[in-house]
Amino acid sequence: MSSAGMSLPGDGPATGPLTTAEIAAHAGVSVATVSKVINGRADVARGTRAQIEEIIRAHGHRRRKRAARPAAVLELVFRQIRDSYHIEIIKGVQQVAREHRLAVVLSELQGRLTPGRGWVEDVLFRRPAGIIEVYSVLTDSQSGQLRSRGIPFVLVDPNGEPAHASPSVGATNWNGGLSAARHLLGLGHRRIAVITGPENALASRARVDGYRTAMETAGVPVDPAFVRLGDYRAEDGLRHGRELLRLPAPPTAIFTCNDALALGVYQAAAEAGLRIPEDLSVVGFDDLRPAQWTVPPLTTVHQPLTEMAVTAAAMAVKLAQGQPLAQTRVELPTELVVRGSTMPPRRP
Amino acid sequence: MSSAGMSLPGDGPATGPLTTAEIAAHAGVSVATVSKVINGRADVARGTRAQIEEIIRAHGHRRRKRAARPAAVLELVFRQIRDSYHIEIIKGVQQVAREHRLAVVLSELQGRLTPGRGWVEDVLFRRPAGIIEVYSVLTDSQSGQLRSRGIPFVLVDPNGEPAHASPSVGATNWNGGLSAARHLLGLGHRRIAVITGPENALASRARVDGYRTAMETAGVPVDPAFVRLGDYRAEDGLRHGRELLRLPAPPTAIFTCNDALALGVYQAAAEAGLRIPEDLSVVGFDDLRPAQWTVPPLTTVHQPLTEMAVTAAAMAVKLAQGQPLAQTRVELPTELVVRGSTMPPRRP
Repeated sequence: MSSAGMSLPGDGPATGPLTTAEIAAHAGVSVATVSKVINGRADVARGTRAQIEEIIRAHGHRRRKRAARPAAVLELVFRQIRDSYHIEIIKGVQQVAREHRLAVVLSELQGRLTPGRGWVEDVLFRRPAGIIEVYSVLTDSQSGQLRSRGIPFVLVDPNGEPAHASPSVGATNWNGGLSAARHLLGLGHRRIAVITGPENALASRARVDGYRTAMETAGVPVDPAFVRLGDYRAEDGLRHGRELLRLPAPPTAIFTCNDALALGVYQAAAEAGLRIPEDLSVVGFDDLRPAQWTVPPLTTVHQPLTEMAVTAAAMAVKLAQGQPLAQTRVELPTELVVRGSTMPPRRP
Repeated sequence: MSSAGMSLPGDGPATGPLTTAEIAAHAGVSVATVSKVINGRADVARGTRAQIEEIIRAHGHRRRKRAARPAAVLELVFRQIRDSYHIEIIKGVQQVAREHRLAVVLSELQGRLTPGRGWVEDVLFRRPAGIIEVYSVLTDSQSGQLRSRGIPFVLVDPNGEPAHASPSVGATNWNGGLSAARHLLGLGHRRIAVITGPENALASRARVDGYRTAMETAGVPVDPAFVRLGDYRAEDGLRHGRELLRLPAPPTAIFTCNDALALGVYQAAAEAGLRIPEDLSVVGFDDLRPAQWTVPPLTTVHQPLTEMAVTAAAMAVKLAQGQPLAQTRVELPTELVVRGSTMPPRRP
């Protein structure tokens, strides 16, 4: 065990934690490369990473300066705080924060993708143990400032971008879209429409691609009029639902790329005098709390938001403690939850 | 104007802000009394309070020590974070925090009413500008510790207790219950049931009392079987909804003391093959986001949660700046929002 930390490396066999510079010297690489591994970045050759991680495992890593002061804060940054979606993430981060007696500082960027200049100053002033960003992206300069102070950041990325420069946690969106469409196909539906999220939302594209693959492998052609571009809002579900249900040959089932869109479809169906699921089957995505209490309860693809937040926060804490991450990209499984909004079509 | 703050009081005519002790000397009262006024407590005689506030208005108040350091944090404490209810409050506090460039530290007591011992230690370590508590109560010792450090705390109290020792913000619950029942009576309903919140929830009692007064002043007796004790959860709405709709003479309308209960009633009505509003009218309370997207959209009493949080946070900031509060208890108005879940009964 090398946890004592009081003996000086260089005094003989190294038994205490090493500084970043000492690890670099041991490994014969640059300090920057060691920093990358410590901060969980992907752009380090596999062999080099393994070597550095082995040194850290054997000796431990002593963080410069920061170790002198208890790291008291985890930062949680949202682009926007709006609904139960965000509650699930807050709950996950709180859970990890409690275990490590960290305070959670909550910031909202009011819909902006990137924090403003003031935000970084404030963060540097608070010197958090780590940062969890949800759906927001730092500029290179912001990332650089945080890295230089040894403040790790991890993305909760429900948007499904696999190639982040920093560690990130997502969900298996493509699989979710596949299971949603397979479920409807299995019930005998053939005219299955999809209402998507915004065009630039990779997660939505992955869900739609999963739907397309399920359709194609079942030998069911996708009517182009059945693919509708939405914006994740109930209003879009209502608008597209109305239009779809007015088609000469309307769909018998609609897969919506989130739960809010499904709520809009429920309303469109009610307006058209159609019953769910007898006249129209609906499958959502996310499985937020309200999905259990729609009439009928919504069949939907569960996205494990709380667990995603727990994982991201645990990764940030690990990095703050100077431990390397086993993986810099984690995708947690989505899962179809069958409730009352789906049944076989009357006439397939 | 006495805002300069560099001249020393006692050097001649006092033009700079005074310390608590100096204000006490001016007013001829104890330091404790001045502290009470500064911290917004109710238990100070009206005349004394007016005199102290006048001195503070004329000279300003200089906080001991704390003024030297920018107060960087507002604490937001929830008993529990669960649904869109809490999102509304978070949004309000964030809004005020942004204006004053304060970070928001979020704590959740996991359902406990009182924070644990560790929480106070952590708060004292962070030295926040102020604390906003939602539905939680500090022990006397905790309050004392915060007061002695000059950390003000304000309650967001949707529970309607008028006699808090600290400043608090609530809503006009009784009025809300009255308008809900009046709306149903005005449509011609007579058999109006109510599903309440928990017995110890004053807010729910106020809503039920408002309902009772509306019924009584309209000369409509309340059937005791029509008053059902719930726990603010959709499950309770479902259970009581089922029982009410199975009565030999079932209600034609149900007023639920929150929106979640109404969701349960929607499900009970669907099970019984009853349509809302044709066969059963429903009025909720809170007007959370999902209320707009039920089928039909829910008629409900709007509780201005975001504004309540804005008000509470602004009070905390004011106290932190050493300004006295105009009122230590604020109740913001509730308002009936008529949507699609109510109409005249078929047979009154």
